[in-house]
Amino acid sequence: MRAVDIIQKKRDRQELSSAEIDFFIQGYTRGEIPDYQAAAWAMAVLLNGMSDRETADLTMSIAASGEMLDLTAVVPLAVDKHSTGGVGDKTSLVVEPVVAACGLPVGKMSGRGLGFTGGTLDKLESIPGYRTNLSTEEFLAQLRTVGLVLSGQSADLAPADGKLYALRDVTATVQSIPLIASSILSKKIAAGAQAFVLDVKVGEGAFMRTLEEARVLAHMMVAIARLAGRRAVALLSDMNQPLGYAVGNALEVREALDTLRGAGPQDFWRHCRVVSAHMLALAGVTPDLGEGEALAESVLASGEALEKFRQLVMAQGGDVRYIDEPDRLPRAAYVNVIPASQGGYLAGLNARMVGETAVLLGAGRARKEDPVDHAVGIVVHHKVGEKVDAGAPLFTLHANDLERLQHAREILLASHTWSAEPVEPLPLFLDVIDG
Amino acid sequence: MRAVDIIQKKRDRQELSSAEIDFFIQGYTRGEIPDYQAAAWAMAVLLNGMSDRETADLTMSIAASGEMLDLTAVVPLAVDKHSTGGVGDKTSLVVEPVVAACGLPVGKMSGRGLGFTGGTLDKLESIPGYRTNLSTEEFLAQLRTVGLVLSGQSADLAPADGKLYALRDVTATVQSIPLIASSILSKKIAAGAQAFVLDVKVGEGAFMRTLEEARVLAHMMVAIARLAGRRAVALLSDMNQPLGYAVGNALEVREALDTLRGAGPQDFWRHCRVVSAHMLALAGVTPDLGEGEALAESVLASGEALEKFRQLVMAQGGDVRYIDEPDRLPRAAYVNVIPASQGGYLAGLNARMVGETAVLLGAGRARKEDPVDHAVGIVVHHKVGEKVDAGAPLFTLHANDLERLQHAREILLASHTWSAEPVEPLPLFLDVIDG
Repeated sequence: MRAVDIIQKKRDRQELSSAEIDFFIQGYTRGEIPDYQAAAWAMAVLLNGMSDRETADLTMSIAASGEMLDLTAVVPLAVDKHSTGGVGDKTSLVVEPVVAACGLPVGKMSGRGLGFTGGTLDKLESIPGYRTNLSTEEFLAQLRTVGLVLSGQSADLAPADGKLYALRDVTATVQSIPLIASSILSKKIAAGAQAFVLDVKVGEGAFMRTLEEARVLAHMMVAIARLAGRRAVALLSDMNQPLGYAVGNALEVREALDTLRGAGPQDFWRHCRVVSAHMLALAGVTPDLGEGEALAESVLASGEALEKFRQLVMAQGGDVRYIDEPDRLPRAAYVNVIPASQGGYLAGLNARMVGETAVLLGAGRARKEDPVDHAVGIVVHHKVGEKVDAGAPLFTLHANDLERLQHAREILLASHTWSAEPVEPLPLFLDVIDG
Repeated sequence: MRAVDIIQKKRDRQELSSAEIDFFIQGYTRGEIPDYQAAAWAMAVLLNGMSDRETADLTMSIAASGEMLDLTAVVPLAVDKHSTGGVGDKTSLVVEPVVAACGLPVGKMSGRGLGFTGGTLDKLESIPGYRTNLSTEEFLAQLRTVGLVLSGQSADLAPADGKLYALRDVTATVQSIPLIASSILSKKIAAGAQAFVLDVKVGEGAFMRTLEEARVLAHMMVAIARLAGRRAVALLSDMNQPLGYAVGNALEVREALDTLRGAGPQDFWRHCRVVSAHMLALAGVTPDLGEGEALAESVLASGEALEKFRQLVMAQGGDVRYIDEPDRLPRAAYVNVIPASQGGYLAGLNARMVGETAVLLGAGRARKEDPVDHAVGIVVHHKVGEKVDAGAPLFTLHANDLERLQHAREILLASHTWSAEPVEPLPLFLDVIDG
């Protein structure tokens, strides 16, 4: 078998066999197939596509390129969740402790933020001491004892994915549905997941801007999960406005803690409750979504979910005083409340502009190697459809630099659009695709 | 400007600007843009195409990636010819001395054979002592004194082409019309040509199998030559059967010498006469094609063309006794005449199978670094349409290995197809595309 023939086959729109895909991925991982051949192949895949069968094979080959965790001794059926990335998306910080408190052990490997979307690890590191680099042994031990882990991706899992992603990033081959789908699922499968809830974000503040492309990605992921012998449910959720109110690392941890105390934004808690119910149903903890939502509601009300989060932070070396007294979390030097310059119904709140403003303030990264400022960010005060009076607080900026604050203020004012007529609120979920 | 953005633009089917193309090509030549970005770009070009304007810019950028020869002090209007490669295509060995004998100085840089097609340099090296690695100074001096040069491509000319070709070869990006067209013309332009006759081969024994794709390539080359301020004529010529009778290095030199003595195969001399007439007309040496053909005929009949070839060989260090007594040329150990196993009208003579058989015998290369055997090859005895009696000589094999000879015999017998009904001869030329 030769790499050049495999590239040519994909160039000519032919379907690659399982053996060809595995030859290519394992050869690339071992460095026997050079970057230039992988780059030509990735461009051919991007432009000519892949069938569900090819994508499932690609997923399994990437998963098998390194260590594969076996969680069956710890969790009867390991369920994982994945969000394709959004603005203000602190869902994992609430859903995972809720689900764990419901009796389903969950161990999640998360990523860092890049571009206008945030990352769970950056948020958790707002809590002094919190370790995100657990070893595989620590990960498994904590899953067993605490029933909840939120850590970083181990370099030993799916190494082909890291190598391929770095190459795609510099060869304009990121935006390929089969490559995105296989990247997401291969890591989940290597981490031992048997079932997934996939939160596919759609809209201005997401990688998938249109419902059509999000639907294609969701269908493909559900199909390849089935072909790979896993179960998956994909939720298509709106990302035209931020989820909740807070955008920025410590600000989002604060909002997640508020939510776990029962005092978070309504939309955000509804979102988390639905995602939790899908995870509980997939695992068979509850017989249907209704009972799952009810169970999630009960562990929130009883404080068990918050307690589980506290146990998580303690287990991973974080200072739990920051959980008990969230005012201790990092605070920016300047906290400015910006009033609405006009009144009316809020017609739009461009999530991408909000995300990019958070990056501008220092909350996110333009490049992978950039540091993040945990204190800075944005808290918006209204959701689309709400009526706002001129002069009422519109958003609050948390900044460590006056010039950036001024710049952020202008962008954010422009990111709010207005209507004199009543405007419908945006939906939370647009569709559910069930395998 | 960033390479990744240029790749993305081509990925998204947008037209690249002159500046973007030049940034990419010069950056790649200098090693600032890595192979993996060039590979992704080449695949995007192959799958999404390039406009004539982009291809002309690409051609000029590749030409400008190294030294550019200026022949204006030596030749009033430098005309070059290029064949896209065929089987038995020894045209340069006859056309160039004929044209030079007509008073038009020609300096040609040729390539080596690869795969089923032969290369002019390999053929010339059948003549002991013949040097194909002239320096630029030697090339120019000989063009001035002899009016005829047949040498190898200087590494200083269009280095981007060599680098890009090697990459395309291993990334399945050879078969792209804009990349083929720019590769051909960039080398000609860097070598100082002001006008070109492009012999685009079509059929089983050519890279372009169909008239449609050959026509696309021919039109594109003529168009980009015009955009680059050069003139070009493209001849579409049949390559379903070998050109002439001989296939193999020394055998083709022998046939070229026979032709220069007025005793070559009819089809081959007609082909050479037409190509010569186009070169003479482009240079303004003769006012039209008819007078060009007549002039070519006269320098052949007078012996001036043969004398010019003899001067060429002497100037480049070759032993002219091999020109005066062609029996001295390398001979194979086994020379077997194979009779027709059946009679009838010759309906087909698969040029690709003939070319591949020559490689099998050792006349060509499967890989660039392979050596060639100058003595071996094939002489077919009939053209499509001829009536052949069973038992009459069908072809002669020249081999240095009995096992390969036996294998070649079987393939070649199968490459001849027969008809009981009369069959039309194949045309020499299918079309002429004039800029």
